[in-house]
Amino acid sequence: MTSMSNLDFEARCRTSFAKQQFMSTLGAVLVRLAPGEVIIELPFSSQLTQQHGFLHAGAVASIADSACGYAALSLMPQDVAVLTVEYKVNLLKPAVGMRFRATGKVIKAGRTLSVCSGSVEAQDGTQWSLIALMQATMMAVPDRDGLKD
Amino acid sequence: MTSMSNLDFEARCRTSFAKQQFMSTLGAVLVRLAPGEVIIELPFSSQLTQQHGFLHAGAVASIADSACGYAALSLMPQDVAVLTVEYKVNLLKPAVGMRFRATGKVIKAGRTLSVCSGSVEAQDGTQWSLIALMQATMMAVPDRDGLKD
Amino acid sequence: MTSMSNLDFEARCRTSFAKQQFMSTLGAVLVRLAPGEVIIELPFSSQLTQQHGFLHAGAVASIADSACGYAALSLMPQDVAVLTVEYKVNLLKPAVGMRFRATGKVIKAGRTLSVCSGSVEAQDGTQWSLIALMQATMMAVPDRDGLKD
Amino acid sequence: MTSMSNLDFEARCRTSFAKQQFMSTLGAVLVRLAPGEVIIELPFSSQLTQQHGFLHAGAVASIADSACGYAALSLMPQDVAVLTVEYKVNLLKPAVGMRFRATGKVIKAGRTLSVCSGSVEAQDGTQWSLIALMQATMMAVPDRDGLKD
Repeated sequence: MTSMSNLDFEARCRTSFAKQQFMSTLGAVLVRLAPGEVIIELPFSSQLTQQHGFLHAGAVASIADSACGYAALSLMPQDVAVLTVEYKVNLLKPAVGMRFRATGKVIKAGRTLSVCSGSVEAQDGTQWSLIALMQATMMAVPDRDGLKD
Repeated sequence: MTSMSNLDFEARCRTSFAKQQFMSTLGAVLVRLAPGEVIIELPFSSQLTQQHGFLHAGAVASIADSACGYAALSLMPQDVAVLTVEYKVNLLKPAVGMRFRATGKVIKAGRTLSVCSGSVEAQDGTQWSLIALMQATMMAVPDRDGLKD
Repeated sequence: MTSMSNLDFEARCRTSFAKQQFMSTLGAVLVRLAPGEVIIELPFSSQLTQQHGFLHAGAVASIADSACGYAALSLMPQDVAVLTVEYKVNLLKPAVGMRFRATGKVIKAGRTLSVCSGSVEAQDGTQWSLIALMQATMMAVPDRDGLKD
Repeated sequence: MTSMSNLDFEARCRTSFAKQQFMSTLGAVLVRLAPGEVIIELPFSSQLTQQHGFLHAGAVASIADSACGYAALSLMPQDVAVLTVEYKVNLLKPAVGMRFRATGKVIKAGRTLSVCSGSVEAQDGTQWSLIALMQATMMAVPDRDGLKD
């Protein structure tokens, strides 16, 4: 396994994120990439709502999942891909706002499994408030399985 | 609180589902409604993929979350709305297939909280296989909070 | 990796369970071992209660965790040990009863990770009722890490 | 509902914790009580081990669950009791150490539901390291249900 310079991991995460067509379908943008920490932003769209007009819990969780996944990938060796094993998300309040921001952080980076903490904030007016909390397990899958990030 | 006939709950769930714009953005369709059990189907679309071309975990979880939510709502009294408190999802294998089917079932229906079990299967060729497993907590929110289902 | 006869897995699980001193501290007993399914029973004891006199959620979860772990181990090759990666548990009702029974079932057995479903029932009088639901991820850890089951 | 002075919540939590017989069976001690944050310590005991001699995941989770529960209770009104709705715990590394310390923090305190974050550290020699991460949902149950904290 080879280690990466900061430039390497940044290019790698940006390239992989650009391939996540679901993120562009949602309108989500990668706004910060640091080793072990990734931030994704999503503007509100009525296309992403649940029945009461809030952002759907699935959209909230999707950006948090991707933020956690890329946070994990940023600390993984070059020759692996990242897959989500599982996550758990609490919706703390209705997802109301003009803009949403998901932060994924690696809590424990392991050889095979990494555990991440995710949070989603909503911007309502000038204020940001926490609307969701995630705990996720990510897996490094070796190249030999035909996957590449 | 008033109880519902089967016809009532079906109309109520269909009306509410039709308001979930995120479901139509995904292309998801409500295919079965029974008291305590709901099935949602989603055809594969490249617009919903993650970086390896599989269905994004967030899309997989979104249809399972909605299936669990409507399964819970189907057993709730008329004068409440349903909100997702939290869920946990395991992705059992890469989400490869032409079609996906999420089933949500109520395991315990409570006055305030209901616990549901969700599963997602993928159809690859003629075979369906289990690709995700969810455990979710749903909450009945009374009308006085301004929400309605 | 070598496969196991039914007798092998049964002896292996019983030997390993006997080493779990926490299970004997709780008073838990292994009552059923089948490939991919394990049942553990626990009689009520006031030593295991929370503040309202119910069985403590931690004790409920502990027997479900062990049942899931041994269910996973029962399908693993001989040269690995099993460790709990994570679990999520819903407490469906207060844990009231004279006896508790945790069932762990393997939903997906993988080379590295296995996903299990656990449930705990309480016997109150002659009736058993479901009191907890678990979803767990177990990991096969190879011998070279110094662990053995 | 009545609010509490700091002295009130401290006495209330200590009294309730003292009734958790499972905590004294484990050997767990309440070492810090602040509004929204509780720390519980547990010395290692061979009575609490799993098959490889590590602290059993169930014991690790039990002290984190109680820490989260009392953190939630510390912010609840006087006339309710606290119950665990559900929790999810990741075991980050084998629970090896002479002493374990669980911290529960309230992330969102709600009228009915509170969401908490829990962590468990192990002391091995002079160093503490994070061994488990929890995300938990706690519920305020009104007196009229016959429960009291």
